[in-house]
Amino acid sequence: MRITALSGGVGGARFLRGLLDALAERRAAGAGGDAASPADEVVVIGNTADDVTLHGLRVCPDLDSVMYTLGGGADDERGWGRAGETFAVARELAAHGDPPDWFSLGDRDLATHVLRSRLLAEGAPLSAVTRRLCERWRPGVELLPMTDDRVETHVVVDAAGLPEDGSVRSPLAEGLARPGERALHFQEWWVRHHAAPAARRIAVAGARAARPGPGVLEALAGADVVLLPPSNPVVSLGAVLAVPGLREALRATTAPVVGVSPVVGGAPVRGMADACLRAVGVPTTAAAVAGLYADVLDGWLVHPSDAPADGSQGQDDPLVRAEPLLMTTPADAARIAAAALDVAETARDLDLRSRSRVGAPAAHAGLAA
Amino acid sequence: MRITALSGGVGGARFLRGLLDALAERRAAGAGGDAASPADEVVVIGNTADDVTLHGLRVCPDLDSVMYTLGGGADDERGWGRAGETFAVARELAAHGDPPDWFSLGDRDLATHVLRSRLLAEGAPLSAVTRRLCERWRPGVELLPMTDDRVETHVVVDAAGLPEDGSVRSPLAEGLARPGERALHFQEWWVRHHAAPAARRIAVAGARAARPGPGVLEALAGADVVLLPPSNPVVSLGAVLAVPGLREALRATTAPVVGVSPVVGGAPVRGMADACLRAVGVPTTAAAVAGLYADVLDGWLVHPSDAPADGSQGQDDPLVRAEPLLMTTPADAARIAAAALDVAETARDLDLRSRSRVGAPAAHAGLAA
Repeated sequence: MRITALSGGVGGARFLRGLLDALAERRAAGAGGDAASPADEVVVIGNTADDVTLHGLRVCPDLDSVMYTLGGGADDERGWGRAGETFAVARELAAHGDPPDWFSLGDRDLATHVLRSRLLAEGAPLSAVTRRLCERWRPGVELLPMTDDRVETHVVVDAAGLPEDGSVRSPLAEGLARPGERALHFQEWWVRHHAAPAARRIAVAGARAARPGPGVLEALAGADVVLLPPSNPVVSLGAVLAVPGLREALRATTAPVVGVSPVVGGAPVRGMADACLRAVGVPTTAAAVAGLYADVLDGWLVHPSDAPADGSQGQDDPLVRAEPLLMTTPADAARIAAAALDVAETARDLDLRSRSRVGAPAAHAGLAA
Repeated sequence: MRITALSGGVGGARFLRGLLDALAERRAAGAGGDAASPADEVVVIGNTADDVTLHGLRVCPDLDSVMYTLGGGADDERGWGRAGETFAVARELAAHGDPPDWFSLGDRDLATHVLRSRLLAEGAPLSAVTRRLCERWRPGVELLPMTDDRVETHVVVDAAGLPEDGSVRSPLAEGLARPGERALHFQEWWVRHHAAPAARRIAVAGARAARPGPGVLEALAGADVVLLPPSNPVVSLGAVLAVPGLREALRATTAPVVGVSPVVGGAPVRGMADACLRAVGVPTTAAAVAGLYADVLDGWLVHPSDAPADGSQGQDDPLVRAEPLLMTTPADAARIAAAALDVAETARDLDLRSRSRVGAPAAHAGLAA
């Protein structure tokens, strides 16, 4: 089975690890059908709009989270970065007073960025660099950056009271802020300010001019199943879908498209997605997040407490399945991924792809590109 | 007193630490004369021809040895790099199979190179970058790169049997090797091959087009004393003197120029300078090394066993003083530096600068630029 998944960082990566586990369990169980084929191929289209240049090094947090998590190198307990990490380089850079000091670059992690930055400087596109890094990590999936072009999400906030020092400068920020506003690189807003300054607008800067990375459109067109993990629906999956052609490919694919809600009971399962949803004027509910994908979605997994009342679903709504979505252990993630695959099979059996999506709302309308 | 010293790496750095100690002792003792002035200023013109780009990062081993040693951050026991060093990044790069694997970049050390590389990439000249790094290290001297231009010493050897893998590529190596030869970056020859492949030629590649760094010529012209530490006379001080204008400035200064022999009893005090001397056709003797500086030298410190027989000195030869030159402890270095300052005072009293150097040999003739 050819499965193509979009992904953000840690949440997506853990779901993907569950997916690989679920596929392995299916193969081991010898369950019939093509899902049990040993030739399962998983392609991951990773968000690169969180990427940031720190200390002159190009950091791709989401791609790295996928590589590290699937390659067995992630620190599951801390929730980000490498297992067994040390911070000697970061301490030295701090001793030099070299900003920013709010983004922890571990030594092991830094090696990834050093190698990536050199290859990029030599002219290799990010997709080729990612392939090279995956030679070491062997994540068990084909990891494709959504684009080889530079895209960096910025959050526009009220400038008052924000420190100037230690700010990340991006050429893509040009023109995003009006007088009295500041356009913060997403990482600065998220990591440094903990998403506290209210987001007036979120812009996936550079997206309009970006082209899909090599293999991305083909992976969507040629998939048997397309999955949307419980990643941040605005700055992760929303950013992926902001690359021109991506959303169209997701609409056009013949594969069922199944998503997993990142919201449980009115709160994000992980992270601070509510702050992002507020910025684009979308309530933090499973149903509202499904609305962001309304034009592409065939199936939608929600937590039991978020399951719609019987009969509340319209004929053109995606198939909604209730499944406990708290992803505490790898086994939880495998169970959720297996449920998503089940929904995809049902959607295929019901031929949900053939229904009209003409009336679907202008999804992600609040997210500027 | 304004003292200007040329310097290579660790040997030069330890001598310079001794020099600062000797000056402090003089001031503490309240010895008369301008040597005791609290306004001692030491300018160090550092060799940059050992510099190398590794993993995309610009490494300046000699400048860093001076900074770390004088700034209290050097690992005296190991003899290079930072004290308390760890190697997490290097291990990761090795796990990625990213060459070279023969140059140990410690984590703390790496922070220096990350910061330097970023500033250089942003367009700052090496002299400004070095000033920035010295803000942290406060080495107690003004550390000037010999040039802001890229200069990289290469050693031309027989190509037979040399590994291609893990070789450092430099654009400056172009055209240095004839058929059957290889031009190795100095670091590759020195660190990877331990100077074992016989050097056919040593070329300070890029030197001919290099301009002296900001302040370099002024520091030589305005000095009260110029010192040549016991650094490698070919690839360290020879490389500094290969920058057009440097040697002329050393000839033209009114300050006495005093050197310390890096050779004791026919062997280098430190490192493998004999392999470099062979390459330029110079015997490994204190007298032969003095000959490399014949056109600029007023005083020369040698180990007692290397002192010339009475009456063997010509009238135009530099003043030679015997002093135990094994630099085992910081106190040794301070004693040697104090002796060098004494010789400089004697040379000034004797007005040795005024003597003709017309007959001086074409020094460093074997070193190609």
